[in-house]
Amino acid sequence: MSAAEALTLIARGADELLKADELEARLKEGRPLRIKAGFDPTAPDLHLGHTVLLNKMRQFQDLGHQVIFLIGDFTGMIGDPSGKSATRKPLTREDVRRNAETYAAQVFKVLDREHTELRFNSEWFDAMGAADMIRLAGQLTVARMLERDDFAKRYAAQQSIAIHEFLYPLVQGYDSVALRADVELGGTDQKFNLLMGRGLQEAHGQKPQVVLTMPLLEGIDGVQKMSKSLGNYVGIDEPAIDIVNKTMKIGDALMWKWIDLLSFDIGIDEAAALRLQVEAGTLNPRDVKLRLARELATRFHDAAAAETAIAGWHAAVTGQGDTSLLPLQEVSVPSEGLRIAALLTAAGITPSNSEANRKLKERAVRVDGEVVEDAGITFGPGFEGVLQVGKRNFARVRLVAC
Amino acid sequence: MSAAEALTLIARGADELLKADELEARLKEGRPLRIKAGFDPTAPDLHLGHTVLLNKMRQFQDLGHQVIFLIGDFTGMIGDPSGKSATRKPLTREDVRRNAETYAAQVFKVLDREHTELRFNSEWFDAMGAADMIRLAGQLTVARMLERDDFAKRYAAQQSIAIHEFLYPLVQGYDSVALRADVELGGTDQKFNLLMGRGLQEAHGQKPQVVLTMPLLEGIDGVQKMSKSLGNYVGIDEPAIDIVNKTMKIGDALMWKWIDLLSFDIGIDEAAALRLQVEAGTLNPRDVKLRLARELATRFHDAAAAETAIAGWHAAVTGQGDTSLLPLQEVSVPSEGLRIAALLTAAGITPSNSEANRKLKERAVRVDGEVVEDAGITFGPGFEGVLQVGKRNFARVRLVAC
Repeated sequence: MSAAEALTLIARGADELLKADELEARLKEGRPLRIKAGFDPTAPDLHLGHTVLLNKMRQFQDLGHQVIFLIGDFTGMIGDPSGKSATRKPLTREDVRRNAETYAAQVFKVLDREHTELRFNSEWFDAMGAADMIRLAGQLTVARMLERDDFAKRYAAQQSIAIHEFLYPLVQGYDSVALRADVELGGTDQKFNLLMGRGLQEAHGQKPQVVLTMPLLEGIDGVQKMSKSLGNYVGIDEPAIDIVNKTMKIGDALMWKWIDLLSFDIGIDEAAALRLQVEAGTLNPRDVKLRLARELATRFHDAAAAETAIAGWHAAVTGQGDTSLLPLQEVSVPSEGLRIAALLTAAGITPSNSEANRKLKERAVRVDGEVVEDAGITFGPGFEGVLQVGKRNFARVRLVAC
Repeated sequence: MSAAEALTLIARGADELLKADELEARLKEGRPLRIKAGFDPTAPDLHLGHTVLLNKMRQFQDLGHQVIFLIGDFTGMIGDPSGKSATRKPLTREDVRRNAETYAAQVFKVLDREHTELRFNSEWFDAMGAADMIRLAGQLTVARMLERDDFAKRYAAQQSIAIHEFLYPLVQGYDSVALRADVELGGTDQKFNLLMGRGLQEAHGQKPQVVLTMPLLEGIDGVQKMSKSLGNYVGIDEPAIDIVNKTMKIGDALMWKWIDLLSFDIGIDEAAALRLQVEAGTLNPRDVKLRLARELATRFHDAAAAETAIAGWHAAVTGQGDTSLLPLQEVSVPSEGLRIAALLTAAGITPSNSEANRKLKERAVRVDGEVVEDAGITFGPGFEGVLQVGKRNFARVRLVAC
């Protein structure tokens, strides 16, 4: 692959590439480049949003480059010395080791273990003295730091910024010096910190790294960025059926963005061709989505699990096929049972009983594939079956007495 | 002495005492307090301005307290990492040792060696890691630091402030924690940094130190603060005759301030009494000044040297007595000699030849006690004698061929 072709692949889905000509020049050198990405040392429980960056790292690996998965444990072990944030408690060395293992178990579903260096920035920062930290702090001005978007906003709003917060971007920047990074990847919100690495590398006589930012992935709601706390995420450790089910729920517009950021199978040119067909009405977008869902389920499980999950999804949606492939969910009900509307809500398929009743009137509710209209029908402990509302919301439940 | 009396003595000449009640409470504890003052590790060549602080330290010693003479070598050895200031080159450990010796040779003319701890802040900061520095930085906010007068001005004027400059006040403040200081002394311009010590001590579970700031001493011109570069200083290593001569030149108003800040001999009550007599016209202020000059010359030399210097000054001013006691100054002149006006200027007694000619016309010029009026009189190599302009400017010179 030519450097120009590699550049096109790398730029896919990227937010900013600073600077493309520098990256092309390095790609032409023909040596494995050092691709750095930093990760938080706390509670790793990755979802698809995190894999946007991992996928980009994987693309570099597939092009023959060396990826450095850097865990920022040094500042993690300090926590928040200003005591403002109760949630940023200092991590112990044991926490860091354990979190790193959890990371490893997850990220190697995407990354190639052979071409990944797992590093910790405590390696070099533990050895640095207070004097070194002061020297590092001498590399940047207060005014420049206050230009960082979040600092600027907090300062303007008279929210307090502790001075150590000015040191953390320098720490992150210095990591690039220590690692002699050629490229650093990060989210769009990391741009300032990534540029810091460029400045510090220059001050240390190194060629400044190329900076590549990736956009944040919207969650299955298609509106907000994917996040655990918003409940709009697809966890990479979730069962294959959940990955498929959730992926099938996304809107058609979001699907194209997900393909750009998450698919290796559907390349740039093919994605464009598929889009034209969908727009022309010659291709059902559901079929494109199914292909993406299958790819994701395969990546985080395997091909067989993906096929089973797809079959389960299909069975539930159509009311045909093997619904036993759907995951079984236990729902606690009173011994006298629950009416259908209350049951749908208890199973999490409808947000409220009134919505459930509306769906009943619309003939949109099925139990085991059969349309149910009678709002008075009641299900008690011992019942097991597939509940469905509309095309996409379903659950295989077993009722137990509370 | 009661705590209240000690407090009065300590407060003499002080700019601010924060807080007087806290100091009084500590004085009542009856133990030796730990009195900290920090000094720059660069090029010590002390003048009377520096001794304002040393005198206050000495007063504490005379009251039975322990003085800590702290040399801030840690940051001195870092220099200016932003590279903005060419004059703040990093000091070597050898520089620091040599400078400390020069300090010691000078400060023990004022301080009691027995009750002085000479310390270096590298003792604790060399052992501190980058992580400790970050924790320290977490103790203060950016907004609070930007309130410091000089930072506020520079930020408003868009002059750059490197981030390490925010760390230095924290370093100074932490010194108070490491030393468990009860009191910190400093110049008025140090107030922000001294208060930093209070905050950090509290954060470390210590009782916050009392902060005592001393005003800057005006130089012999009575206008600007005493400084080597302004030439209005009295160096503590200068010959006794120069100390006397320069002290005798200060104005009467400044004399009272000098007495408050520099004299141990003339106490608060006596100074007030003397002032009343001078104001009533029953005491010549020159006699008060002579007493101060004698005290200073004695402090930095000894009683005999002070008496000799006073006699020399007297001889020159009156044209009577032993002018050989004046220090001999060599002045290079052309072999054909210099006219009197040019000679006075070359000897540094008049600022210009035109001023010298004016003084000749006023009959204010004397050579060896005799009034000289003839502007044409010439002095050549080999001449030795006392030149005098007015009452207070004189020099004993020997002319040598250039």
